Amino acid sequence: MLGNFTYQNPTKIYFGKGALADLKEALKAYGKTVQLIYGGGSVKKNGIYDQVVSLLKESGKKIVEDGGVMPNPTVEKLYEGVKIARENEVDLLLAVGGGSVCDYAKAVSVSVYCDEDPWEKYFIRFEEPSCKLLPVGCVLTMVGTGSEMNGGSVITNHAQKLKIGHVFGSEVMPKFTVLDPEFTYTVPRRQMVAGIYDAFNHICEQYFSGTDDNVSDYLSEALMKSLIANSRVALKDPENYEARSNIMWAATWALNTLIAAGKSTDWEVHMLGQAVGAYTDATHGMTLSAVSLPYYRHILPYGLKKFRRFAVEVWKVEERGTDEEIAQSGLKALESWMRELGVAMGLKELGVSEEMIEGIADATLVMDGGYHVLTREEIVKILKESL
Amino acid sequence: MLGNFTYQNPTKIYFGKGALADLKEALKAYGKTVQLIYGGGSVKKNGIYDQVVSLLKESGKKIVEDGGVMPNPTVEKLYEGVKIARENEVDLLLAVGGGSVCDYAKAVSVSVYCDEDPWEKYFIRFEEPSCKLLPVGCVLTMVGTGSEMNGGSVITNHAQKLKIGHVFGSEVMPKFTVLDPEFTYTVPRRQMVAGIYDAFNHICEQYFSGTDDNVSDYLSEALMKSLIANSRVALKDPENYEARSNIMWAATWALNTLIAAGKSTDWEVHMLGQAVGAYTDATHGMTLSAVSLPYYRHILPYGLKKFRRFAVEVWKVEERGTDEEIAQSGLKALESWMRELGVAMGLKELGVSEEMIEGIADATLVMDGGYHVLTREEIVKILKESL
Repeated sequence: MLGNFTYQNPTKIYFGKGALADLKEALKAYGKTVQLIYGGGSVKKNGIYDQVVSLLKESGKKIVEDGGVMPNPTVEKLYEGVKIARENEVDLLLAVGGGSVCDYAKAVSVSVYCDEDPWEKYFIRFEEPSCKLLPVGCVLTMVGTGSEMNGGSVITNHAQKLKIGHVFGSEVMPKFTVLDPEFTYTVPRRQMVAGIYDAFNHICEQYFSGTDDNVSDYLSEALMKSLIANSRVALKDPENYEARSNIMWAATWALNTLIAAGKSTDWEVHMLGQAVGAYTDATHGMTLSAVSLPYYRHILPYGLKKFRRFAVEVWKVEERGTDEEIAQSGLKALESWMRELGVAMGLKELGVSEEMIEGIADATLVMDGGYHVLTREEIVKILKESL
Repeated sequence: MLGNFTYQNPTKIYFGKGALADLKEALKAYGKTVQLIYGGGSVKKNGIYDQVVSLLKESGKKIVEDGGVMPNPTVEKLYEGVKIARENEVDLLLAVGGGSVCDYAKAVSVSVYCDEDPWEKYFIRFEEPSCKLLPVGCVLTMVGTGSEMNGGSVITNHAQKLKIGHVFGSEVMPKFTVLDPEFTYTVPRRQMVAGIYDAFNHICEQYFSGTDDNVSDYLSEALMKSLIANSRVALKDPENYEARSNIMWAATWALNTLIAAGKSTDWEVHMLGQAVGAYTDATHGMTLSAVSLPYYRHILPYGLKKFRRFAVEVWKVEERGTDEEIAQSGLKALESWMRELGVAMGLKELGVSEEMIEGIADATLVMDGGYHVLTREEIVKILKESL
């Protein structure tokens, strides 16, 4: 059943070739001081940083630098970003890069005017912000996380070996996001496919729950089919604008709360993947791909009807044989596509060893809302099968 | 190709059984005086009016009555609504009913602080609002138009025999909308099916353009499939919550700008239907159903690839025969579903006579952006075939 929900997503999207020029319009609504957030420097190499700086200067903004955000933003970096924002009385947080910088900008946003420790407040106690928020804008250069149009933020605490996400409400979502598909051309192939699989898995996480046929299930299948078809074009021709633009737009809708509306979800693949990430610092999408198939094979009997539907609707599996056989064929088709993409198919290639399994299992949050709540034994079994 | 676009839809949705209770939270953001907009009195009969009035009073609001909005809101009624808002210095326009009251509320919103004649400014000259807007909230009781989550407003001028829609930007969209599927149970069957077909046709209007496979095409098919499946349940069991809730949510997304993102559209079925509406005052959804099949058969050769895809993806037509045969089978499946629904299959049953055809053709706006721009002769031919 479509459960009760509230839905609101106010993020303004500027989409297309040359959409960065719209940044000038977007900037008008905000004050003078802009904290310019970016990662390890790829935006400097590909020239996007210079374009953004020019537009900021033309708009009369004062730029406060905040580079060096790592792929899995750490709590120490978060403290640093908050300090920068406070010391400079920043008016806007502008993230330029992939999901990590967007995630980080949102974490800074909710922490600048908050007296408590943000790690404790938001990522341990999962409280909601009760202080003034700094507005966030994004210029996305890498596709996958959906962070550009949602309230999610994932922060890693290496000391505690925890990587935890908090999904904030619509007031924390970016005020605007620039999506220029051409900006994604320079992303290395490994990052491109990790992003595509990340987006695909976001849909799966929301799709694999419930037994009835909600609008959400149809929309989820639509996004999956679009991602699959366009990924095959992009693999052969990474500068195919049509493919990259459709991947970019589908990935945004894969995780901006629409397809979760009225559904319960457990996000268990992400719980497993984030635990792996806390231990290995591996690319997020690859941690998801490495654990997905053993996990889905494990829960298939509990959600047989939906796994059968997944096979038929998404993968066009012929409806011959038992429901279980049809459902298994769907997972085989998924596996075959994952191999085409070239995503990680096992944890060993991410640096996980047998001895780390117990620790990763300890770090895996167990959620309900899906087809089956995992026991610790099941988590260990799935992780071992994922090696 | 996915063209450049901006997307923003800030409407907050309160969805589900009992969601009207959330009105109290929603009202907090607005001033004291609320213009309560409704139609011919069905909301009084079914008790929804009383519930809304109670919540407004509990919230300490002053209610200014504005009932009697007709199914096709007239320009005279618009002037009246503007006068009410001005005289009472209204803070919020709250529309309770179907698409007509939401459309009307938006037309009042853009006109209250505007010195010019709103009919001339917005519906003849298609200008954008340049004055202060009054916020709009909706409590939807009838599904179909999508007006609850978009900037569209359709106003009828009987003297000029024109029914014209203006799609305003996100600043005119309702600030919030309450969607309780149970509120739609009391809608007469004829209105229910007209609303379902209206929503379906909104998707078709946006789907039948372009030759490539954008995210939008997949999402459109998803919404169509969900509407078809759930309409069949609702026809047999109008109080099936699951069916009515999914119809309600799909209809909202059928016309809230998402599936139009990056696409060109011509909305020609609506142009034909609105001209019929201006002449007959017939139910909007029925004017669309009456002209749809002759129109689609006419443009099928110009958009063959998409009509073939429509047949295969939406109607599961077997891929045997020529593309044209497969595409025609899709339209036959559509026709068969329309007959199941019981929507108008011809203009005569809406009161159109042969002599009115020329006048309706004169009132039909011809748009580009679709597969084929109609000549006047083609419009007359389609209208005659629709009789």
